[in-house]
Amino acid sequence: MNSNDKTNPLWGGRFKGKADETALKFSASVDLDKRLYKEDIEGSIVYAMALKEAKVITQKDYSQIKKGLLAISKSIENGKFHWDVNLEDVHMNIESALQKKIGKAAKKLHTGRSRNDQVATDLRLFLMRKIDLILHEISSTQKRITKLAKKYHEAIMPGLTHTQIAQPITFGHHLLAWNEMLERDYSRFKEVRKRASILPLGSSALSGNSYGLDREKMAKRLGFDSASNNSMDSVSDRDYVVEFLSAASLLGIHLSRINEELILWSSSQFNYIELSEEFCTGSSIMPQKKNPDIAELLRGGSSKPISYLMGILSLMKNLPLSYNRDLQEDKHFLFNGIDYCLSSLEIFSLMIQSLKPNLNQMKNDCEKGHITATELADYLVSKGMAFRAAHKKTGEIVADADNENLQLHELSLDKLKKRCKLIEEDVFECLIPENALKLRDSKGGTSPKEVLKQIKRIERDLKKRAI
Amino acid sequence: MNSNDKTNPLWGGRFKGKADETALKFSASVDLDKRLYKEDIEGSIVYAMALKEAKVITQKDYSQIKKGLLAISKSIENGKFHWDVNLEDVHMNIESALQKKIGKAAKKLHTGRSRNDQVATDLRLFLMRKIDLILHEISSTQKRITKLAKKYHEAIMPGLTHTQIAQPITFGHHLLAWNEMLERDYSRFKEVRKRASILPLGSSALSGNSYGLDREKMAKRLGFDSASNNSMDSVSDRDYVVEFLSAASLLGIHLSRINEELILWSSSQFNYIELSEEFCTGSSIMPQKKNPDIAELLRGGSSKPISYLMGILSLMKNLPLSYNRDLQEDKHFLFNGIDYCLSSLEIFSLMIQSLKPNLNQMKNDCEKGHITATELADYLVSKGMAFRAAHKKTGEIVADADNENLQLHELSLDKLKKRCKLIEEDVFECLIPENALKLRDSKGGTSPKEVLKQIKRIERDLKKRAI
Amino acid sequence: MNSNDKTNPLWGGRFKGKADETALKFSASVDLDKRLYKEDIEGSIVYAMALKEAKVITQKDYSQIKKGLLAISKSIENGKFHWDVNLEDVHMNIESALQKKIGKAAKKLHTGRSRNDQVATDLRLFLMRKIDLILHEISSTQKRITKLAKKYHEAIMPGLTHTQIAQPITFGHHLLAWNEMLERDYSRFKEVRKRASILPLGSSALSGNSYGLDREKMAKRLGFDSASNNSMDSVSDRDYVVEFLSAASLLGIHLSRINEELILWSSSQFNYIELSEEFCTGSSIMPQKKNPDIAELLRGGSSKPISYLMGILSLMKNLPLSYNRDLQEDKHFLFNGIDYCLSSLEIFSLMIQSLKPNLNQMKNDCEKGHITATELADYLVSKGMAFRAAHKKTGEIVADADNENLQLHELSLDKLKKRCKLIEEDVFECLIPENALKLRDSKGGTSPKEVLKQIKRIERDLKKRAI
Amino acid sequence: MNSNDKTNPLWGGRFKGKADETALKFSASVDLDKRLYKEDIEGSIVYAMALKEAKVITQKDYSQIKKGLLAISKSIENGKFHWDVNLEDVHMNIESALQKKIGKAAKKLHTGRSRNDQVATDLRLFLMRKIDLILHEISSTQKRITKLAKKYHEAIMPGLTHTQIAQPITFGHHLLAWNEMLERDYSRFKEVRKRASILPLGSSALSGNSYGLDREKMAKRLGFDSASNNSMDSVSDRDYVVEFLSAASLLGIHLSRINEELILWSSSQFNYIELSEEFCTGSSIMPQKKNPDIAELLRGGSSKPISYLMGILSLMKNLPLSYNRDLQEDKHFLFNGIDYCLSSLEIFSLMIQSLKPNLNQMKNDCEKGHITATELADYLVSKGMAFRAAHKKTGEIVADADNENLQLHELSLDKLKKRCKLIEEDVFECLIPENALKLRDSKGGTSPKEVLKQIKRIERDLKKRAI
Repeated sequence: MNSNDKTNPLWGGRFKGKADETALKFSASVDLDKRLYKEDIEGSIVYAMALKEAKVITQKDYSQIKKGLLAISKSIENGKFHWDVNLEDVHMNIESALQKKIGKAAKKLHTGRSRNDQVATDLRLFLMRKIDLILHEISSTQKRITKLAKKYHEAIMPGLTHTQIAQPITFGHHLLAWNEMLERDYSRFKEVRKRASILPLGSSALSGNSYGLDREKMAKRLGFDSASNNSMDSVSDRDYVVEFLSAASLLGIHLSRINEELILWSSSQFNYIELSEEFCTGSSIMPQKKNPDIAELLRGGSSKPISYLMGILSLMKNLPLSYNRDLQEDKHFLFNGIDYCLSSLEIFSLMIQSLKPNLNQMKNDCEKGHITATELADYLVSKGMAFRAAHKKTGEIVADADNENLQLHELSLDKLKKRCKLIEEDVFECLIPENALKLRDSKGGTSPKEVLKQIKRIERDLKKRAI
Repeated sequence: MNSNDKTNPLWGGRFKGKADETALKFSASVDLDKRLYKEDIEGSIVYAMALKEAKVITQKDYSQIKKGLLAISKSIENGKFHWDVNLEDVHMNIESALQKKIGKAAKKLHTGRSRNDQVATDLRLFLMRKIDLILHEISSTQKRITKLAKKYHEAIMPGLTHTQIAQPITFGHHLLAWNEMLERDYSRFKEVRKRASILPLGSSALSGNSYGLDREKMAKRLGFDSASNNSMDSVSDRDYVVEFLSAASLLGIHLSRINEELILWSSSQFNYIELSEEFCTGSSIMPQKKNPDIAELLRGGSSKPISYLMGILSLMKNLPLSYNRDLQEDKHFLFNGIDYCLSSLEIFSLMIQSLKPNLNQMKNDCEKGHITATELADYLVSKGMAFRAAHKKTGEIVADADNENLQLHELSLDKLKKRCKLIEEDVFECLIPENALKLRDSKGGTSPKEVLKQIKRIERDLKKRAI
Repeated sequence: MNSNDKTNPLWGGRFKGKADETALKFSASVDLDKRLYKEDIEGSIVYAMALKEAKVITQKDYSQIKKGLLAISKSIENGKFHWDVNLEDVHMNIESALQKKIGKAAKKLHTGRSRNDQVATDLRLFLMRKIDLILHEISSTQKRITKLAKKYHEAIMPGLTHTQIAQPITFGHHLLAWNEMLERDYSRFKEVRKRASILPLGSSALSGNSYGLDREKMAKRLGFDSASNNSMDSVSDRDYVVEFLSAASLLGIHLSRINEELILWSSSQFNYIELSEEFCTGSSIMPQKKNPDIAELLRGGSSKPISYLMGILSLMKNLPLSYNRDLQEDKHFLFNGIDYCLSSLEIFSLMIQSLKPNLNQMKNDCEKGHITATELADYLVSKGMAFRAAHKKTGEIVADADNENLQLHELSLDKLKKRCKLIEEDVFECLIPENALKLRDSKGGTSPKEVLKQIKRIERDLKKRAI
Repeated sequence: MNSNDKTNPLWGGRFKGKADETALKFSASVDLDKRLYKEDIEGSIVYAMALKEAKVITQKDYSQIKKGLLAISKSIENGKFHWDVNLEDVHMNIESALQKKIGKAAKKLHTGRSRNDQVATDLRLFLMRKIDLILHEISSTQKRITKLAKKYHEAIMPGLTHTQIAQPITFGHHLLAWNEMLERDYSRFKEVRKRASILPLGSSALSGNSYGLDREKMAKRLGFDSASNNSMDSVSDRDYVVEFLSAASLLGIHLSRINEELILWSSSQFNYIELSEEFCTGSSIMPQKKNPDIAELLRGGSSKPISYLMGILSLMKNLPLSYNRDLQEDKHFLFNGIDYCLSSLEIFSLMIQSLKPNLNQMKNDCEKGHITATELADYLVSKGMAFRAAHKKTGEIVADADNENLQLHELSLDKLKKRCKLIEEDVFECLIPENALKLRDSKGGTSPKEVLKQIKRIERDLKKRAI
C-alpha cells in the first residue's frame, strides 16, 4: 500500500497526502447520487459511442466499455455492487469498477469529459424520467376526480367564500376546480421537462470539447431535444432544479388546499364527507377518534417542496460561474422534491377514490346563511331595480331575517313586500337553492349542465394524453 | 349624517354599525391596488359591453358607463382623482366615483359580477402587460451582452471552476453564458404570461354567471387567450403570481451570479474589469474608494423576489377554496416582484454597456494555475496514452512544477521527458493558452470561431422577436 | 456649475464624472432610511460629544453641531426638511443640511466615523425602540386575552385534535393557550433586543477608531448595554435583523393559527363565536355576507414576516466581510417586519376584545363526537382494567354506538354491560362532559379551578412588567 | 388471525377494516422518529414512576415497566430491535415490545398519557441534548480560531469593504470577527435550549391529566426546567423547532460568509491562504486542480438550515390548535437541521486548524488600493483641516495618483504639497500601513495590542464555559 492509499486514484496525481477521513465522509455524495446510476451508465455508453465515431477510441474499446457498463448496471440493480465512499460519487465508483472489470479501455472513457458535464447530464436525464412518472400520476388523479365529479355533478352543497356560506354549488363543480389545479400542474411539469431536455454532455469542464464529438447526435440518442449552446452555462446552470421545485411547490400548494377542505369537511361540525377508515388512524388515548391523518400529512407535506425550493434558491444565489462544489447539494433538494411529488400523488389519488360525500348534510346546509341572497338581488334586478340598489335592499331584508332568527326564504311575502314593493309571490321560486344552481350556466359555471359539459371536455383532453 | 356614515355604501346594507377606524385602515388595500386602475376600468368597459349584448343593460347605460369610466381614467392619470380609504379598494373607489358622475346607470355595472372575479381579471391583465415590458428589457439586455461578446470573442481570460483557474476561455464566451441565462428567463416569462392569459371575468363570486354573458368574447376583447373553465378555481387561483415570482427569482439568481462575478473581477486582486464611475460610489470616510455599489445592489437585490416567492407560497398554503381575504396580500408580493424585475434589468443593462475589460490582466493570469494542464493530458492521449493515465501523469508533472515554483510551460523538456518519454518538443505548442482555445470548437465551446457562430445565431433569434 | 454637480460632494473627491441618473435613483436609499433620522441625529450628537471629550473638536464645535442637529430634527418632524435623493441616504442628507446650517464645524462631525458604523448604530437603536413598542402591544394583548379567559374560565366547549372532537375543555383554557404563545413571543423579542443592544459606533469603516474615543461612554449615553468587541464584525453583522424577523415570523405563525381558529369558529357550520361587525366586511355581490376579513388578513399577513426572514437570510448568505452594499436591503426587510408586528398586534388586540362566544353552540357540540370516550376508558381503569385494554374496550363500545347512530352517553346500561361487565350505573356520571372537565386539574389542565389559578399567575406576571 | 390484523392493536378498537398498505407506508414515521428511542424510554420510565407515586400503578408494575424498557433500550442500542412499520412510530413500537416482554403491566403505562404529550417531550429532550453537543462544537471551534488569531495578531493584510481594498487590518483581527459571529451563535443556542426546557408530559391529549401526577417532579427528573403552563399549548407548540432552525440558519450564514472568504483567499488572484490538501479535491479532467471543496460545501450547505426553517414555518402556518398530524413533518426538518450543525461544525473546526496564511502576499497587497488614504485625511485633520475637507482633498490626491498609475505613498512631497500646503515630510510616516494599524486602538479596533487584549478576554470567557 502506498502513501496515496486514501487519495482518489482517479484525480489524485498532484496530491501528496491522504485525504482527511472526516473530510472524505463529509464531502462524499455517493450515498445520495448513486440514484443516478442508470442515467450515468447510459450517458457513458452514448459518450463512448461518440468517442468511437470521432475515432478517439476504437470499436473494440467501445464494445468493452459498453459491455462492462451494462454488467455494472445489472450488478447495481441486483444490489451486488459495492459502493465505496472513498471514491466520492457515483461517477468515480462506476469508472473505477469499469477499470477493474475491463482494464485499459476504461481509462479512455473520460477523455474530453468532466464530471461537471457528466453530472449535469445525469441529473437532467433523471429528472426528465421522473417527470414522466409524475405526469402519469397527475393524469390518473385527474381521471379519478373527474369520475367523482361526474357522479356528483348535480349534488348541491354550499359554496363558501371566506369560509362563510356564499352561494349554492354542486359537489361536482367543486371537484372540477381541483381538476383545473392539477391541469395546470400537468402543463407546468411538461414545460419544466422541455427546458430540462438540453444536453450538457460534451461541454467538458467548462470550455467545451476538443475531440470533435457530435453533440447533437448524443442528445438525440439520450432522448434530449438538443445539445446546449454554451459550455460554461451548461455546467453552471441549475435552473431546471429550481423550476422543478417551483412546480412541485405549486402541486404542494394545491394538495394543501384540497386537503384542508377534506379536513374541514370531515369535522363533526361540517360533516360533509366521510373518509375511508383506511386513510384514517386512531388515537393512543382517545378511543373514539378517527383522525384524517393522511389528509393532514398531505396538507403538511407541502411544506417540503417549498423548503426545498428555498434551499436551491439560496444555494444558487451569488455563485460565480462555472461549476462550484456547492452545487452538490442540488441533489438533496431535487431528489427529496421528486419523492415528495410521487408519494403524495399516489396516496392522494387512492384516498380521493374512497371519498364519500354526505349529501344530506350538504343539502341541509344550503338552508343556512341566506344562501340565495344574491338570487334575491338578481330577482330585484329582473324587476327593474339597478343591481347596486337591489344589493342594498336585499342586505336590509337579510338584516330583518337575522333579527327574527329566520332564513331569507322563511320570511313572509308581507314582510318582504314591506321592504320592497317589487317583490311578488314568484320570489320564493328564486329562493330555492336548486333553482339558483341551474341559472349559473355560463362557461365554467356551477349549473349541472355546464358541469357535465366540462367533464366531457376533460375526458376528451385526458384521453388525448399519450401516457 | 346617518349611522351608516362609515359603512361602505356599496355592500353595507346588512350592517348596522360603523366599521372600526383601525380596522378600516388595516384592511384597506387602495394604496396598493390603485395601480390596477387602468385594467380595472378596461375590464369594466368590456364587462358593460357584455351586459349590453346580453340585454341586461341598455345601449344608453353602456354609453354612459363607458364615457364615465374613461373620464375617471383620465382624472386618475392626471393625478386629480381622490382615492378614499373608506372605500377600501380600487374597485369600490371607481364604482363609487362612477355613481357620482353618471348616477343610476353606474349601479347596474356590477350586475352578476363580484370583486372576486374582477380583481383576478385586473391582476392577470396587469401582469400580462408588465411581463411584456420585462420581455422587452431582457431582449435589450441580451442585445447589449451579445454586442460586447462580439467585440471580445477572441479575448482570452482564465476560466474558473471552484473559483480556481481551470482552462482558458474567451471573454466573449463567458458573456454568452450570461446570454443563455437570460434566454431562459425570456422563455420562462413568456410561459408565465401564457398561463396568466385566462379570463376569470364572468365567474362572479364563485359559482358562475347567470346573465348569459359571452365570456369568450370578453376574453378576446381584453386580450386574453380564453375564458376560464371553472368559476370556483377562477376566483381561488393565484398560481400565476407564484409562477411569475418563481421566474423573477430565477432572473434574480442570474443577476446575483453575474454581479458576483463583476464584483470579484473589479477587485484589486482580480483587476479584470473596470466599472464606469457612473455605477460606483465613494466612501464617506475612505477617500480613495470606488465601490461597485450598483453591482452589489444587484447581487443583494435578488433576495427580494426570493422573499416574495416564499411570501406568496406561504400565503397560499392551506387556504380552502374559494376566495379568502388572505389573497389581498398577493399584490404586496406581486407588485414588489414586478418592480424588482423592471428596475434591476434597466440598471443592469445600462451598466453592462459601460463595462471595460482589462485584457492584459486577463491574459497575464492565463500564465497562472497551470491553465493548460488538461491540454497536456490531451497531448498524452494523442500520443496513445489512455486519458486516465495521462491525467495521473500530468498531475505528477504539475506537482513537480509546484515544487519548483514554476508554471507547467516553464518546465524544461528534459524535466518533462523524465516524467514521461512520450513528450516531445511539440508539447510546448499545446501549452500555449491561445492554442487551447481554438481546439474547443464543438457546439457551445469556447473557440473564437464557435463563439462567433453562436453570436450570429443569437442575433438572428433576437431579431425574430416581435417587440 | 462645475462638472461635479451631480457627484456627491461628501465623498466625490476622487470622482471625475457625474453619477448616472438611473444609477442614482436605483441606489439611493433615502426614501426608506429617512425613518432613521431620529436615531441618526441622536447618534451624531453623542458622537460629537465623544469627539469633544477626546479633544478632536472644540466645545464650541460641539455646541454648534448639537444645536444644528436638533434644529434639523425639528424641521424633519415638522415635515419641512427637504430630502434630496442625490445625497443618497439619511446620513448624507443630514450632514449636508448641517453644513449648510452651521458651516465648518459640520465638516468635523464625521471625523473617524464611517457610514458603516453609523448606519449599524442607527439601525440597532431604531430596532431597540420599536421592540419596546412591540413588547408593550404584546402585553396589552395578553391582558385582554386573560380578561376574556377569566370571564369564560368555566365555559365548556369541545377541544379538538386533528380538527376532530377530542375532549371537553373550557373556552378560558383555550384562550390561555393563546396567552402562552404570546408569552413566548414576549420573551423572544426581549432577547432580540438584548443582543441588538451592542454599540457599533466607533468601529469606523471596518478597522476601528484612532481618535481615542470612549466607546463604552457612547454606548451608555445612547442606551446600549455595551460597545462591540470587534470593529470588522460590527459593520458586517446583521444577525439582529435575522433574529428580529425570526421572532416576528413566530408571532406571525401564532396570529395565523389563532385567526384560523377564529375563522373556523365563525363559520355557520361551527358557529362558536360572533365577530363584531366592526371587524367584518360585506360582499360586493352577495348581500347577506359578513366576512371575517380582519381575521383572514391576520392569517394571511403572517406570510409577510416569513417572506422578510427568507429575504434577509438569502441576502446575507455568502457575503464576505465586511460592509457590502447588499446590506442596504436589510432595511426593506426590517422596516416591513416591524410595521407588520405593530399593525397586526394593534388590530388583533382590538378584535379580541369584541369577540363573543356562542356558549350554547359550544356546549351543544360537547354532545357530539363521543367526547367523553377517554373518560369511559379511565372509568374502566378505575374499575381495575389496564388502560390499553380499557382503550380497546371503549373503542368497541364507540363502534356499537356509531352503528346505532347514538352518542356514547345515549347507550343503555344494558348495552354497555353487555360489552363489559365492569360497567355500573355510575358510568353515566363520568360521561357528563362537565364532570370530565373538573378532573383535569394537574398543572396546565383544563379544570376551571386550574385555569383560574393560571390566570392569577399570569396577572401577577403581567403586572410585574414595567411597561 | 382476525380481520384486524393490520389495524394498529394499540388504538384500533373502533376500527373495522384494515389500514391501506400504501397509507400505512405513507404515514408511518418510525424510520425517522426511532432516533428518539432513548428519550422516549427515559420519558416512559419517569412517567411510570409518577403513575406509581400517584398510586395509579403498583410498585411492582413500575419495576416491571422499568426493567422491560431498559432491556428494550439495550436491544435497540445493539441493533437487535425489530422496528415494525405497521406500528407507525417509535412510541407504539416500544409500547408494543414492552407488552410482549412484560405483559399486562405494560398496558398500564399509557394511562393518562397521549402520544401528543409524549412526542413533544421526546422531541424537546432530544433537542436539548443535541444542543449541548452543538455548544461544545462551537466552543471548540472558537478555541481554534482564537489560537490562530493569537499567532497572527500582528500579521498585516488588506481589510476589504465592498470587496475593495479599504484599510490595513491584522489577520488576527479578522479572525476575531469570526469568533464574534460564533459567540453569538453560542448564546443563541443556549437560549433556544432554555425555552425548549419546558416539560409537556402530563398534558395528555390536549386537556391535561386527571390522575394527579406531579408534573414538576417529572420535569426535574428528566432535566427540564419546569412543567408547562397550558396543556393545549403543550401539544400544539413547535416554537422550539423554529427557534432552533433559526439559530441553525444564522450559524449557516456565518459559515457561508467565512467560507466565501476562504474560497476567495485561496484563489490564485488573491493567494492569501493555503488550504491543506486534506480538505481539497482534484478534478476528474483537469490534472492541476486543487479545489477548496470542503469550503464550498460549507458555503453551499447553509442553504440547508435555511430550507428547513422555511419548511417548519410553512408547516406551522394556519394550523389550528391543538395537535394535527401535519406536525409529524417537524422531525424531518429538525433532525436534518441538527445533523447539519454538528457535521458542519466538526469539519469546519478541523479545516480551520490547518489553514496557512500567505503572509507575504497579504503584506504586499497593502501596497495597493491607496490603502492609507484615510490616514492621509486624518493627517490633514491633525493639521487643522476639517475632516470633510480633508476627505475631499485626499480624494483629489488619489485621483492624481491614479492618473500617474502610482500609489499614494509613491507621490513626491512636492506633488503632495502642490495639492495641499499643510502636508509636510512627516506625511510619509502616516502612509505606512503598519503605522496605521497601531493607531486603531479603541475597543474592538485592529491594533495588535487591542487584538491581543480581546484574545485574552475571549480565552477567559471560553475557560469559564462548563463543557
